[in-house]
Amino acid sequence: MKTLDFYFDFSSPYSYLAATQLPALAARAGATVHYRPVVLFAVFKAAGNDMPAKVPTKGAYMLKDLERWARHYGVPFRFSSHFPSNTLKAMRLVHVAADQGKAEAFTQAAFRAMWAEDRDLARPDTLADLARGVGLDPEAALAAIETQPIKDRLRADTDAAVTRGMFGAPAIYVGDELFWGNDRLHFVEEALKG
Amino acid sequence: MKTLDFYFDFSSPYSYLAATQLPALAARAGATVHYRPVVLFAVFKAAGNDMPAKVPTKGAYMLKDLERWARHYGVPFRFSSHFPSNTLKAMRLVHVAADQGKAEAFTQAAFRAMWAEDRDLARPDTLADLARGVGLDPEAALAAIETQPIKDRLRADTDAAVTRGMFGAPAIYVGDELFWGNDRLHFVEEALKG
Repeated sequence: MKTLDFYFDFSSPYSYLAATQLPALAARAGATVHYRPVVLFAVFKAAGNDMPAKVPTKGAYMLKDLERWARHYGVPFRFSSHFPSNTLKAMRLVHVAADQGKAEAFTQAAFRAMWAEDRDLARPDTLADLARGVGLDPEAALAAIETQPIKDRLRADTDAAVTRGMFGAPAIYVGDELFWGNDRLHFVEEALKG
Repeated sequence: MKTLDFYFDFSSPYSYLAATQLPALAARAGATVHYRPVVLFAVFKAAGNDMPAKVPTKGAYMLKDLERWARHYGVPFRFSSHFPSNTLKAMRLVHVAADQGKAEAFTQAAFRAMWAEDRDLARPDTLADLARGVGLDPEAALAAIETQPIKDRLRADTDAAVTRGMFGAPAIYVGDELFWGNDRLHFVEEALKG
């Protein structure tokens, strides 16, 4: 089975856009998506990169560009009023969900919550609701994300992504090949089919 | 007649990639391309932006990404051994060529020289050769690029681009709408047709 590693942070709107397309892309290519949350702030720091919106005119441009992509894909999008939200706990919850075979369902629900429904992923009640929505026990899930093994997995994936060469989000790996950005999904699909 | 403003610096390889596609795109959309060279270094500085390759892993990634796009388009590409070349004189020559209706021919030839043929645009003999190739008098052209009015036009276009909101290259404007990057040409075409 072919696989792709999808490295993202819920705080990245371009990662949301990519996430809306990946299930169908993977189905077309006969591949599996590995959902790998990473702490984007730590990736930027380790790579020597800056937040894209540090440049004011670039930040303004990106708001329009994000809307163009959402229209192009036909997916809902609303720039989060909670940005930059603390997404650490939501990202740890991906690992809890993964242990029950629900990484994709939870990841997609959390992305929609942040970038289509303007919900705050830093709030425990949001997380409990999202966990419940994909069939997880919310109390057990919220307890699990405070445990060291789950914290360690998020950190380990973040470190591994930087070592592989990630410098921004989303980053998609097919084997050793890196594809950066929602705007490279056609190359990802080619690489999976090639 | 619909128009698009194509802001570029010959030193930008993504601008070269976009330039290879623009004549056909404009023909499909019934539009005219205005070739507008700008001093990218000055744009970065004014916008508070950095050279993309300042981040080492990003620079390494871009080399592969450029090759993917060239293969995707079926156009020749070889990363210039003269990068970053001084492209000021070549960009002034676009204005000299424009005054004789040869902006597109000269721009395309100079981009190919830098990014497909590994020629150095900082050399007067390269410029003379390119000028001759598009039917300009090379001696007159090389004299013209040292005159103040031609220098002023390059500077004025650079300032105007920054004022419009340009922060990186290539930048394409359709009316007031900015599209940044070789990877947004599909949105450019939609905007021209819309």
